[in-house]
Amino acid sequence: MACPAMANGNDSLNLKPSETKGKTITCKAAVAYGPGEPFVVENILVHPPQKMEVRIKILYTSICHTDLSAWRGVSEAQRAYPRILGHEASGIVESVGEGVSEVKEGDIVVPIFNGECGECTLCKCEKTNKCEIYGVNPMKKVMEGDGTSRFSTVHGKPIFHFLNTSTFSEYTVVDSACVVKFVSTDHSLSIKNLTLLSCGVSTGVGAAWNTANVHSGSTVAVFGLGAVGLAVAEGARARGASKIIGVDINPDKFIKAMGVTNFINPKDEEKPVYERIREMTDGGVHYSFECTGNVDVLRDAFLSAHEGWGLTVVLGIHASPTLLPIHPMELFDGRNIVGSVFGGFKGRSHLPHFAKQCGQGVVKLDNFITHELPLEEIDKAFDLLITGKSLRCLLHF
Amino acid sequence: MACPAMANGNDSLNLKPSETKGKTITCKAAVAYGPGEPFVVENILVHPPQKMEVRIKILYTSICHTDLSAWRGVSEAQRAYPRILGHEASGIVESVGEGVSEVKEGDIVVPIFNGECGECTLCKCEKTNKCEIYGVNPMKKVMEGDGTSRFSTVHGKPIFHFLNTSTFSEYTVVDSACVVKFVSTDHSLSIKNLTLLSCGVSTGVGAAWNTANVHSGSTVAVFGLGAVGLAVAEGARARGASKIIGVDINPDKFIKAMGVTNFINPKDEEKPVYERIREMTDGGVHYSFECTGNVDVLRDAFLSAHEGWGLTVVLGIHASPTLLPIHPMELFDGRNIVGSVFGGFKGRSHLPHFAKQCGQGVVKLDNFITHELPLEEIDKAFDLLITGKSLRCLLHF
Repeated sequence: MACPAMANGNDSLNLKPSETKGKTITCKAAVAYGPGEPFVVENILVHPPQKMEVRIKILYTSICHTDLSAWRGVSEAQRAYPRILGHEASGIVESVGEGVSEVKEGDIVVPIFNGECGECTLCKCEKTNKCEIYGVNPMKKVMEGDGTSRFSTVHGKPIFHFLNTSTFSEYTVVDSACVVKFVSTDHSLSIKNLTLLSCGVSTGVGAAWNTANVHSGSTVAVFGLGAVGLAVAEGARARGASKIIGVDINPDKFIKAMGVTNFINPKDEEKPVYERIREMTDGGVHYSFECTGNVDVLRDAFLSAHEGWGLTVVLGIHASPTLLPIHPMELFDGRNIVGSVFGGFKGRSHLPHFAKQCGQGVVKLDNFITHELPLEEIDKAFDLLITGKSLRCLLHF
Repeated sequence: MACPAMANGNDSLNLKPSETKGKTITCKAAVAYGPGEPFVVENILVHPPQKMEVRIKILYTSICHTDLSAWRGVSEAQRAYPRILGHEASGIVESVGEGVSEVKEGDIVVPIFNGECGECTLCKCEKTNKCEIYGVNPMKKVMEGDGTSRFSTVHGKPIFHFLNTSTFSEYTVVDSACVVKFVSTDHSLSIKNLTLLSCGVSTGVGAAWNTANVHSGSTVAVFGLGAVGLAVAEGARARGASKIIGVDINPDKFIKAMGVTNFINPKDEEKPVYERIREMTDGGVHYSFECTGNVDVLRDAFLSAHEGWGLTVVLGIHASPTLLPIHPMELFDGRNIVGSVFGGFKGRSHLPHFAKQCGQGVVKLDNFITHELPLEEIDKAFDLLITGKSLRCLLHF
């Protein structure tokens, strides 16, 4: 399905940006007021973008487990309220601040929580997708430029930002380093599907492609079959993996796991999962992916990789202070373990090409969006995620 | 310096093997009778090699920290007495058992604790130097073929093997998978220097070359400046590293550390070592090497690597049950950690070429052998190692 902009051969929607440019916008947002408290969907004020900032009209946003952890306030140090959560989204540039040249009003964009300034030592190195300034930082709650917020309540009280993005709002302001522009002539994705590239699908597919570099004929195990885990499986399928073993304690997830060739429900197993996987793969998989944030699962993933060359990629968010459950001497067995953030993609440099590949069908995106609700029903969307009933539930405004 | 065999253009020494072939040999060995007890240098019996085994007359053996740990009996599960320790050596084939074709009587060889059968799944993969059958196994105390020992006391009591090698004996029997043959026309090393390739120098240089793949102009930190650590530094120097920072609490070690460009004695520092190293290297080294077996040092090594691309290579033997002092989320910073056994060298496949490189002066071996003593003074040799006064002390018979 083509997005409206693409349908008429134009990358801009008719938003009449001139009416709002430079002004404070009053719009709807879902505001978190305390850990685990129901969201309050209310009008807020979104102030104009400052130097090197971009104000985006969000068309779709979805929810991933990072939002869930932040909403629950799992990490006390990261708590800050009131706050606008949300980091996976797509939208249209409403206006830009001083100095912004790479995007302009009307451009189709996705915000990225792992920004790319393009100028720092890390951005200039091809080995990493970290950025010294705009990298993932759950502690950050204000804009980089002046240390203040662009959101406030209608009574003028500041509302904090989240993960460089804050997409549970009809309008948001982000640093230009955290915006990726998509030109319709370069790809054939709908805006809904572009939303998936803002976090989950890029994180999963990129972990398989960029971090692990899964090779044709290889064996793969994916622990945790949420959207990220299924994106890993889809990335592995696209690379020609011969066996893709999905592991999850929720058997309902298996139905949605199209690319997965074999399933293991740890609840049905008498022996440790890693032993079952070793049996199924002649000693262990080439690549295992931990997408749960649970250290016991992490150890199973580590041990399910083949000695000598197996690689475990950690994608899960580990909120507990528990250290890696691996003894130093176990590294001598030749199993390697690495972390992967945003799939190793440098957002601005790599995502446009990735969108093109998705549009060509290299990666199939159609099964990831399972639900769609208005922003007002955000609590229901969270519940769908918590109970494992949704992969991605799009919220619209 | 050329070895005697090379001096006369012959790879065999005049050992008259025919006199001993097929017979039990009575010879001198240093036998460990209990954890930390002084060695007993006494006559033992060395029985003939069986199918696919090789009996070697040891010319030189040296001592490394793995022998020290085994002698002390640090790991209760690995204790077995009486036992002949020792794994770094050079020697001459005295005789071979049935089926051995790759070496013959009189060949100059070194035993390798990390064998290479050449036939198993691991041996056939270029990504690892592990071997399913003859890999490092400190629990193993008998021969692979028949599960018995080739050593006994003069009273007939079996004496256990150690690390596929047991070189603290004038004669030893090893599996043919654990023997590397060196032909004098292929290299110009003395037998004394060949001894170093049996463990320490290969382990260190290989960690820099094979495991880390240190690149020209890179920055390196080496934690622990024993023979292995200095071999890492020498390997990094040979690769053209621009800065090689040596870290040790024994300042005497610095004098011997020829390839090291900068020294840090943690005892002289007020701030954590990793912070000092980050200051010295614009944010962290490309490669850090942990050669101490201490988990606190391991964490310093990990944090001294640059975020985004830094690699920590663990070489130290960690006898304590303490797990890796790394939180799963720290993997997201892009610092990687891997283990390295025997420098990633497949012994039989790679060491002959490595000997050639050493002979060409690519790696300088002359500073590693600091002492030489007769086997009878093995306790003194251990003391030199424990007090940090020796790098390698060769024992001769």
